[in-house]
Amino acid sequence: MHDGANVLRDLFLIFLLARAGGEILVRLKQPAVIGELLVGIAIGPHAFGLVHEGEVLRSIAEVGVVFLLFEVGLENRFSDLRRVGGTASAVALSGVVVPFVFGAGLLLALGHGTNQSVFLGAALVATSVGVTARVFGDLRMLRHQQAQVVLAAAVIDDVLGLLVLAVVTGLAAGGLEAGQFALLLAEAAFFLVFVATVGTRLMRRHGPLLERIRVSDGPFVVGVVVCLGLSALAAQIGLAAIVGAFLAGMVFAETREHYTMEKRIEPVTHFLTPFFFVLTGMAVDPRFFTNPAVVGLGTAVLLVAIVTKVVPCSIAARSLGATRALMVGVGMVPRAEVGIIVASIGLRTGVLGAELYGVVVLMSVLTTLVAPPVLRVLARKAAVPETIRIHETLP
Amino acid sequence: MHDGANVLRDLFLIFLLARAGGEILVRLKQPAVIGELLVGIAIGPHAFGLVHEGEVLRSIAEVGVVFLLFEVGLENRFSDLRRVGGTASAVALSGVVVPFVFGAGLLLALGHGTNQSVFLGAALVATSVGVTARVFGDLRMLRHQQAQVVLAAAVIDDVLGLLVLAVVTGLAAGGLEAGQFALLLAEAAFFLVFVATVGTRLMRRHGPLLERIRVSDGPFVVGVVVCLGLSALAAQIGLAAIVGAFLAGMVFAETREHYTMEKRIEPVTHFLTPFFFVLTGMAVDPRFFTNPAVVGLGTAVLLVAIVTKVVPCSIAARSLGATRALMVGVGMVPRAEVGIIVASIGLRTGVLGAELYGVVVLMSVLTTLVAPPVLRVLARKAAVPETIRIHETLP
Repeated sequence: MHDGANVLRDLFLIFLLARAGGEILVRLKQPAVIGELLVGIAIGPHAFGLVHEGEVLRSIAEVGVVFLLFEVGLENRFSDLRRVGGTASAVALSGVVVPFVFGAGLLLALGHGTNQSVFLGAALVATSVGVTARVFGDLRMLRHQQAQVVLAAAVIDDVLGLLVLAVVTGLAAGGLEAGQFALLLAEAAFFLVFVATVGTRLMRRHGPLLERIRVSDGPFVVGVVVCLGLSALAAQIGLAAIVGAFLAGMVFAETREHYTMEKRIEPVTHFLTPFFFVLTGMAVDPRFFTNPAVVGLGTAVLLVAIVTKVVPCSIAARSLGATRALMVGVGMVPRAEVGIIVASIGLRTGVLGAELYGVVVLMSVLTTLVAPPVLRVLARKAAVPETIRIHETLP
Repeated sequence: MHDGANVLRDLFLIFLLARAGGEILVRLKQPAVIGELLVGIAIGPHAFGLVHEGEVLRSIAEVGVVFLLFEVGLENRFSDLRRVGGTASAVALSGVVVPFVFGAGLLLALGHGTNQSVFLGAALVATSVGVTARVFGDLRMLRHQQAQVVLAAAVIDDVLGLLVLAVVTGLAAGGLEAGQFALLLAEAAFFLVFVATVGTRLMRRHGPLLERIRVSDGPFVVGVVVCLGLSALAAQIGLAAIVGAFLAGMVFAETREHYTMEKRIEPVTHFLTPFFFVLTGMAVDPRFFTNPAVVGLGTAVLLVAIVTKVVPCSIAARSLGATRALMVGVGMVPRAEVGIIVASIGLRTGVLGAELYGVVVLMSVLTTLVAPPVLRVLARKAAVPETIRIHETLP
């Protein structure tokens, strides 16, 4: 195993520094993922050059993001989609269409190619609801209307975002012809609908069989098999692997096994995902951010990313009253890992150059940093009576 | 992520088939690991050629065996070593020295090189106690004297086996000079003693600090960091990486966290180790077993592997009475994954050729298959009164 010494050294360094970076950011009340990204930038080839990306690390990172999306899928149930109200659907839909149109439009107006433009649009689509949920949780507002609307909208938003991603990934591989576009859209929609209906029904009917498997840890094994299988299948037919992983997660979310499944998948995710975020950071060249042209573009994209979520989502939620509607809009702003995953696919497939990649990563980080303090201010302004009431009823 | 499609496909295929093979073997009342090996032989380049070994799969397999040995280490406590009785120590010591001497002697007598001979000796040393423990468990004899002696002896046996492995790995890399030999032995012993004393003491005193880490899943993270760190360190100073992983496990076995740690590490091990055993099988060329010279050598090694454990260990345990002493001797026979891990290191470092590698893998599989039925017969013959009594007291 002597030739494995370097791989083990790299895994050790990346995991140790990523977790240490995460710990520091958490103590600063920021998401751990930002610490992992910063560690990646620092140890990457553009800065200290401690670790060099190779085929092995890239594959481990890819498996990491596949498991991450599987875990995210485990938290989303198809059956919940039917129950969410009209407000949440309107919030989700407007929060997908508007950022995509304006994001892609901005790049087209600046003279970028069609592929780059739709990819940037896709990167602006999906909200990372984790950060917002954490803030609402800290404020003990998770049962309030504005929090419930954001959480429900995020589920629809994830599904729509993956559909958009599936299509633009295929486009990036094949170019933009009307016939191909229709085929890809049909392929993605079929994959989604097939897994959502047949997979979900199978799982709800035969889920209990999982417990009869005699190989130790049977449900976990079946979960991993389905996750890897649908990811490989998605990649094979030209969609992003993570689309398959997310759908696999949603299928297992239907079974009563899904709590156990999350607990068992979690350690694998905790071990593997830091490699994804550190490698994502490693691909960012910090010197770009001293280039005025890149900074200008970055600022424009950031503004589009914020405004195109806050304005349409607030309008869609206007029935909640001004301040709460604004909380919904702000709550939909953070892109975090979702934007970054899209950016890394763009970089890998050669659609996004290093500069646009850096812009999307920066946009993802800054939207994530900006939303929580604004939410806290709005919460203090709007929800004082309810907050007090809830504090009084809770021990 | 298009270039990752093949990696995901390979991971999916290997994981699915390995677990299916394991399931079949478990239903045949055999260890799952044998199913994984057979799947590896079947899909490997010497048979159906479904999957081809590359740098990525090899690295994932290596990380898998590192986590496996970490988990094995978690079940062994340094503090238990002091408590085990004289009988267990005698069983362990004779069961290490005799197989090593006769194994290496056999190959030397047949005209093989010194490095090959000591490597084969090392592969015969360590008992895989898992299989025996399972058989005793099935027979509800885990609290009987003969089971306790075997389990205690296996701990010492593991530690001594790793010491032997550490030394022969270093030898294989450097050649056999008296000065180097002494240095390596000192290095291995120092590593072992340092981790065992300082690591254990640190962990027992400061273990509770683990719970204060604010990054989610703190104890798990620290466990993974120490496991990867000691593995990388062991590999760097010329020992086998798994020696470091095993010692890391033993250190964490001391804390009261160790139950949680096992539960958290298990999914990672369950995900990663099948890749190790499938790749191990892939390196075996089944056609060797139709070559009379290889079959002859294999038979000789198998006989040495069985006799050199049964005879000295039974003699060392003679105070238990003839049949129970024989049960101890037979219980020490299975080599399973431990022999296979040593063989794969031998193949990787170029010490063992493809034929000797196949011989060691076959020896590991056959010793594992042979022991359980013999143990069951001996149990029926010797322990009838106790078995009945235990069956009666249990519901």
